[in-house]
Amino acid sequence: MSDEDPAAAAGLARIAIRHAKPSDYGRVIGLINVWWGGRDMAPMLPKLFFIHFEGTSFVAEAEDGELLGFVCGFLSQTADDEAYIHFVGITPEDRGEGLGHTLYERFFQEVRAQGRSVVRCVTSPLNQGSLAFHEALGFEVERIAEDYDGPGEDRALLVKQLT
Amino acid sequence: MSDEDPAAAAGLARIAIRHAKPSDYGRVIGLINVWWGGRDMAPMLPKLFFIHFEGTSFVAEAEDGELLGFVCGFLSQTADDEAYIHFVGITPEDRGEGLGHTLYERFFQEVRAQGRSVVRCVTSPLNQGSLAFHEALGFEVERIAEDYDGPGEDRALLVKQLT
Repeated sequence: MSDEDPAAAAGLARIAIRHAKPSDYGRVIGLINVWWGGRDMAPMLPKLFFIHFEGTSFVAEAEDGELLGFVCGFLSQTADDEAYIHFVGITPEDRGEGLGHTLYERFFQEVRAQGRSVVRCVTSPLNQGSLAFHEALGFEVERIAEDYDGPGEDRALLVKQLT
Repeated sequence: MSDEDPAAAAGLARIAIRHAKPSDYGRVIGLINVWWGGRDMAPMLPKLFFIHFEGTSFVAEAEDGELLGFVCGFLSQTADDEAYIHFVGITPEDRGEGLGHTLYERFFQEVRAQGRSVVRCVTSPLNQGSLAFHEALGFEVERIAEDYDGPGEDRALLVKQLT
């Protein structure tokens, strides 16, 4: 990675990133089913993430208030040096422009300040775009776990050391 | 509630309750789709709850190791006096025997020891069994929230003060 802010480099400097609030949830859930091509994603992202993990969840908005992306994560309550990213979404129009990186970097900054040195997340091992996105951010595939999130739900387990 | 342990009163004294472990997840997720009458519940209960919230999640096992129930919860990272219960499941054969109460009481004990005085959870406002279960445990319905967990997903918001 260069030292340059990828979002600024891509002309995204006018996008505002702030902590997620419970009142963001309705807007997010209405959009993500569209962003995921009609799949019903709501069961994977209940409102609790916007209520109980505000400090480690962020939304990105355009100047006119349009929602462009979000990231939901939390501090592990089992491993006190770890944080976990549960869900990230970027509007299809802005993918590949650095906004996902910027949201992850904002998360890293927050959890580092709260004493965490390891970030974990999981993705489908078939999702080459997601794997490439995470590898560019410094994640490594720890292993591929069969049936990780239930029968047939294999996952690539990703880990990044914060420096 | 009486002072008597409802599980012991119902002859459940030989059931062991312990912290959930990541290795419990496969067994749980294999059973809950059966317990919920064939609905696919796995998207609502990803493995992360068994990895990152071990300290506030519990399983109940029979003497022969059979899984009889579990509760998954966590400490709110937004409100430092609150804890949240995300999911509870009891094998249909043992419902109404006090095991759900015992699991909740174990959760209350744990989060009280960690300085939490309020427990929240949500349920379907149409689920009279769940509403009665929670009211018997001292929860109150704060309000019914339309579209809470996405379009058409109304929820009764439940709250209990720990004493």
